[in-house]
Amino acid sequence: MSGPVTAAGISRIALVTDFGPGPYVGQVQLVLDALVPGVPVLDLISDLTPFRPDLAAYLLPALVRDTPRGTLFLCIVDPGVGGERAALALEADGRWFVGPDNGLLAVVARRARRLRALRVGWRPAWLSQSFHGRDLFAPVVARICQGQDLGWAAMDGPALVGWDWPEDLPQIVYRDSYGNLITGWRAERLDTGATLALGGQEIGWARTFCDAPPGTAFWYENAFGLVEIAVNQGRADLQPGIGPGADVELG
Amino acid sequence: MSGPVTAAGISRIALVTDFGPGPYVGQVQLVLDALVPGVPVLDLISDLTPFRPDLAAYLLPALVRDTPRGTLFLCIVDPGVGGERAALALEADGRWFVGPDNGLLAVVARRARRLRALRVGWRPAWLSQSFHGRDLFAPVVARICQGQDLGWAAMDGPALVGWDWPEDLPQIVYRDSYGNLITGWRAERLDTGATLALGGQEIGWARTFCDAPPGTAFWYENAFGLVEIAVNQGRADLQPGIGPGADVELG
Amino acid sequence: MSGPVTAAGISRIALVTDFGPGPYVGQVQLVLDALVPGVPVLDLISDLTPFRPDLAAYLLPALVRDTPRGTLFLCIVDPGVGGERAALALEADGRWFVGPDNGLLAVVARRARRLRALRVGWRPAWLSQSFHGRDLFAPVVARICQGQDLGWAAMDGPALVGWDWPEDLPQIVYRDSYGNLITGWRAERLDTGATLALGGQEIGWARTFCDAPPGTAFWYENAFGLVEIAVNQGRADLQPGIGPGADVELG
Repeated sequence: MSGPVTAAGISRIALVTDFGPGPYVGQVQLVLDALVPGVPVLDLISDLTPFRPDLAAYLLPALVRDTPRGTLFLCIVDPGVGGERAALALEADGRWFVGPDNGLLAVVARRARRLRALRVGWRPAWLSQSFHGRDLFAPVVARICQGQDLGWAAMDGPALVGWDWPEDLPQIVYRDSYGNLITGWRAERLDTGATLALGGQEIGWARTFCDAPPGTAFWYENAFGLVEIAVNQGRADLQPGIGPGADVELG
Repeated sequence: MSGPVTAAGISRIALVTDFGPGPYVGQVQLVLDALVPGVPVLDLISDLTPFRPDLAAYLLPALVRDTPRGTLFLCIVDPGVGGERAALALEADGRWFVGPDNGLLAVVARRARRLRALRVGWRPAWLSQSFHGRDLFAPVVARICQGQDLGWAAMDGPALVGWDWPEDLPQIVYRDSYGNLITGWRAERLDTGATLALGGQEIGWARTFCDAPPGTAFWYENAFGLVEIAVNQGRADLQPGIGPGADVELG
Repeated sequence: MSGPVTAAGISRIALVTDFGPGPYVGQVQLVLDALVPGVPVLDLISDLTPFRPDLAAYLLPALVRDTPRGTLFLCIVDPGVGGERAALALEADGRWFVGPDNGLLAVVARRARRLRALRVGWRPAWLSQSFHGRDLFAPVVARICQGQDLGWAAMDGPALVGWDWPEDLPQIVYRDSYGNLITGWRAERLDTGATLALGGQEIGWARTFCDAPPGTAFWYENAFGLVEIAVNQGRADLQPGIGPGADVELG
């Protein structure tokens, strides 16, 4: 498929990045506000683990699961800065995703019941070496919103980088500000009788925080549908080496 | 009072949370943007001390004092996650507040000259165990904006959790990014001749930063009307143990 | 020049501050949303180095270089809190800037081909001692947007604080969340053969990250046009004493 893409149905743009605090999120918001005035540009998450699209790939489908339709997700995490990779636009079960072809969008794509994957041929007149989020991807998002041509080339799913990655990722993919450790495992795949092992510790299931004794680590199905390791009234991330990328094993 | 609540006069929504950086603020913003399109949803504060509604309760009335009318404040700090507590909506001197009945809204309520307190009976069809901010409170806010029924039950002020808490709280309730220490004490209650004691240090009054010698701790009435301990061209939070929850005494 | 200033062409407001996380950005956003409803108020950057308008002054023109026209920049970094300084409004090459006359806007002003500098005589009825961003500068921005009188007094550029500062600043002016070190040097002023010295280390040029060996420091022209010191797949800020304000020398 390579016909024009309609602008139908994009009501807001959500940014999903590893940009951290600082000017990068704001610069993308300014550019988008000028290109598609009136469409809110919200910072959904900006503290993804830098340089780790593999970890973010497993958080992304969970993060968007309960967000409203009509949202376009502009997603940017790159393993390096200035490296070569294709620019993608996906329509997955009615949601739009724009980002680099480095695996970041692969899990969303593979789990979609209806998928349209497009490689973006269009390039802006000027492009910095190091900030494609502002200079390439934000204008691509605007052109999608406006139904403009992007030099689309349809891709088969298996051509996407990361299409062959495992179905779930038994690793910590994100640490939140409370010190909770979110894994890349869908909770529906695990029996509540399962015990997990992380950093030499055995971790049993609880329904939620208040069902676990204060100070004890437990795992539960978080509000995104993922297995999350937490400590009631405490932090689960205090042990050295326990953070994004760490392995979680079935005990 | 339990009649329908009109949507009159809500022009913007402000989020007051302990959610920190990460996806939780953004998810609430996405949900609200879809439910009440066109109403800005601003992140007023998201680094309140986790699990301490008691501290936030004394910051809240000060934080909203000089904000414009027509703002609805969605406030979420819980002592634990997934525990049981009622959902509240307050109309206090013409401002709306929505949040849990755990003390967080108690000081706003008690200081109001005109107060309407309502317990929310409505529940959404689906509700995660751990993210009521997104799944319960955000839809409640949307229904208030739209004038929809919420299964209201009027409450008397004294039935609110925290109604009997002290009038002012002589503790650090918030540390800002400059290292200033905000107390739960209204400055109008203190004479400028008063000396405070914090961590064994005597702290005198100054009108503002530039009136205090560089490097010396002083207290002053901050821009919210609270007693704040600061150091001119320095940080007031460098001593161990000096942070949110620490006692401040009259010296 | 002291005639009325038209409201023409302001489509969005960008905040450029050292306010950090916390309630200060949100309070300014709330005030502006009420005064100029419908105009987006975006947080462009809020982690500038506190109390260092001199460093921010050299980042600012680079930060706004590739942002869309029609943006008004509200800029606040003060060397102290509550000190006396004039309030400025600048129109520089078609962009509006509002902020204190402490050098923060001086480099933008001096590099402008067309400059209009105005001292703001207007003051609000009430003004806190410590939060002029919310109480003075935000209302000034709103009055500019609405074309209201501000008691303007035209200034000559050389009357601005900081007009005589050096053209470029060979210091670290900002450290981003990836640990990259941005200098106040425009890259167009440096030959790519130049070697820099920072903390006893020799630093050569690379086109971008992927052209430098992993783990090695290099300098490059960043997406703002400034000399930036970075480490491919690493952080450039791990050496003690290397941060905002540190000198960078030609090796």
